Amino acid sequence: MKVNNKHFRTIWPSADGRGVEIIDQRWLPHRFEVEQLSTASEMATAIRDMHIRGAGAIGAAAGFGMYLAMVSSDEDSVDHDVAAAAAELKASRPTAVNLEWAVDRQVEVIAGVVTLAQKRQIALSGAQAIADEDVEACRQIGLHGIHLIRLISEAKQGGKVNILTHCNAGWLAFVDYGSATAPIYAAHDAGMDVHVWVDETRPRNQGARLTAWELGQHGVPYTVIADNTGGHLMQHGLVDMVIVGSDRTSVTGFVTNKIGTYLKALAAKDNGVPFYVALPSSTFDWNIRDGIAETPIEERDGDEVKFASGLVDGQLGRVLLTPADSKAVNYSFDVTPPNLVTGLITERGVMNANEKDILTFYPERRELATGSL
Amino acid sequence: MKVNNKHFRTIWPSADGRGVEIIDQRWLPHRFEVEQLSTASEMATAIRDMHIRGAGAIGAAAGFGMYLAMVSSDEDSVDHDVAAAAAELKASRPTAVNLEWAVDRQVEVIAGVVTLAQKRQIALSGAQAIADEDVEACRQIGLHGIHLIRLISEAKQGGKVNILTHCNAGWLAFVDYGSATAPIYAAHDAGMDVHVWVDETRPRNQGARLTAWELGQHGVPYTVIADNTGGHLMQHGLVDMVIVGSDRTSVTGFVTNKIGTYLKALAAKDNGVPFYVALPSSTFDWNIRDGIAETPIEERDGDEVKFASGLVDGQLGRVLLTPADSKAVNYSFDVTPPNLVTGLITERGVMNANEKDILTFYPERRELATGSL
Repeated sequence: MKVNNKHFRTIWPSADGRGVEIIDQRWLPHRFEVEQLSTASEMATAIRDMHIRGAGAIGAAAGFGMYLAMVSSDEDSVDHDVAAAAAELKASRPTAVNLEWAVDRQVEVIAGVVTLAQKRQIALSGAQAIADEDVEACRQIGLHGIHLIRLISEAKQGGKVNILTHCNAGWLAFVDYGSATAPIYAAHDAGMDVHVWVDETRPRNQGARLTAWELGQHGVPYTVIADNTGGHLMQHGLVDMVIVGSDRTSVTGFVTNKIGTYLKALAAKDNGVPFYVALPSSTFDWNIRDGIAETPIEERDGDEVKFASGLVDGQLGRVLLTPADSKAVNYSFDVTPPNLVTGLITERGVMNANEKDILTFYPERRELATGSL
Repeated sequence: MKVNNKHFRTIWPSADGRGVEIIDQRWLPHRFEVEQLSTASEMATAIRDMHIRGAGAIGAAAGFGMYLAMVSSDEDSVDHDVAAAAAELKASRPTAVNLEWAVDRQVEVIAGVVTLAQKRQIALSGAQAIADEDVEACRQIGLHGIHLIRLISEAKQGGKVNILTHCNAGWLAFVDYGSATAPIYAAHDAGMDVHVWVDETRPRNQGARLTAWELGQHGVPYTVIADNTGGHLMQHGLVDMVIVGSDRTSVTGFVTNKIGTYLKALAAKDNGVPFYVALPSSTFDWNIRDGIAETPIEERDGDEVKFASGLVDGQLGRVLLTPADSKAVNYSFDVTPPNLVTGLITERGVMNANEKDILTFYPERRELATGSL
């Protein structure tokens, strides 16, 4: 998408071929910074400390991280270095399934390749392919999702369509377009009157910081709200639909996404507001059946809750919100059960959040899944 | 309750008889400040700008504000000044019903009183009575509510009782004890093992700032969480009950409380967690029937959403969270429908959130309410 009218992805190989560059999201919306990374460890740090975050983006980052492991290695140590990088990258964030998926895919494509030069070349094109497929999946999600927005727009005779989203499942969370935002950008570009309620998404404020910034850059009207507000808006008919992303969606339709998503899904259900989840196929977890019991939920530092970060007198800083000696816990994700999900928007189409319907769209998975029934 | 081991209420007449003093909650938890107020206008500002806030506390503040109107008036202008103060105080916050209730009650007690000196004396004792009744109601709420906590404690064989609360319905929100906190303090003082999940309560963080501070001062174990977190905790059995306060509860059982309460009530229902609302009788609105349609919901400045306030390098300050040009809206309250409420804890006892049961506890209201059926 465009940043000050220049096209950017969230991640790309450096022009000099020696590293990988990412948009460093820590400084947004206050500063636009690009970070150059040269090693797999640097990439793992960038993922863990959320210089780059979001399901698709960290999948691509893991793919490029595996490439960096080979760039900084030599013939003798490459096997060891690649194995170490795979472990480090997989461990950098526990919840998003794309990370594991991308690392395993890279391990697979270089398996059996003999020379280091070839490995590097294949890992680079493998990472590029992961990124390109992510872009294409998000573009397709937009093409499927725009129909849902158009239905509402037409029902409202061209009136404003109010869409609530949580966290950032925008292009910053992927490589381009985003998942939840792809239908929104597509509808806006097609001339529909869309307006987005942006949940600020405490504790790290990815909505207030990132979704607000990218919608603003693209000219989509939006309003930031406290995470507490969505239910009230729905009770008063001010939300036409919810679209969120996902970090892991089970084959049975349980949606793991940013903490607080479940509360919005409950409110949507209670008020008859359609609740959609947009995700590329790489976000499915084909093994998990009971999402609430089985999904690993990342727990981050309680200081992210005790403090809020942003701009203080023109400088980046943070404020302490609580008593200094407060205890705080910080679960990063929650799981929305399938009965609260109106539909899943993927690059293959829109499907109900249940195993039978999901597998209809993924027949190649049917045999695997049936085995575990 | 105690602050550094000295007993305080949230509001009291100055020792010199010329004004009223309040705990100025703007600086908590970082600084403990007492503010002296001399006029009804200063009191209205203190309520509007939330130096003092919370249903019971602003009821008492309005009572004392009416007294201040007489302190700063003279024989000729007192009728005019009292009417002006009544209007200004009522308009200072629109949602809490206690404000209107206290002002009207003061207007009533001074009606027909002839001399200014007598008016002052009666208004002062009227304000004291409002404060004392608030204290007594909260104490009684504690006595009724402790039974609910004990039931859970016994069911868990003395194990930890995890109670989630939203916003601050603590003693800072009343004159003493608090509503939602009164049963918690009572249970803690009785030796039960209680632990409180404190929703931070964006945008103004009354949970992270005030509830955390007062629980800490009293030695009750607590953990601050982002507002997004309660649903996840409930899904995993980590919440035994929810107790919140209310700013206005309709005779039909609709509970108006801090924005986001409704979302927690939905999650409690979905997970079979009891959801209690603690309120003194002064918080009932005997006229409203459809809480969602009829309750006036305060809308505050969007900057409260765009910024977060706290301690920066030892000084009070705020950080900008969003892009500088973001639009933000800030609804302060939402309405939880009766079907999500397990029970109302009042000074008269614990009752179901429906008109029939409420009126059983308030037989004196039965005739009035029946008239509007």
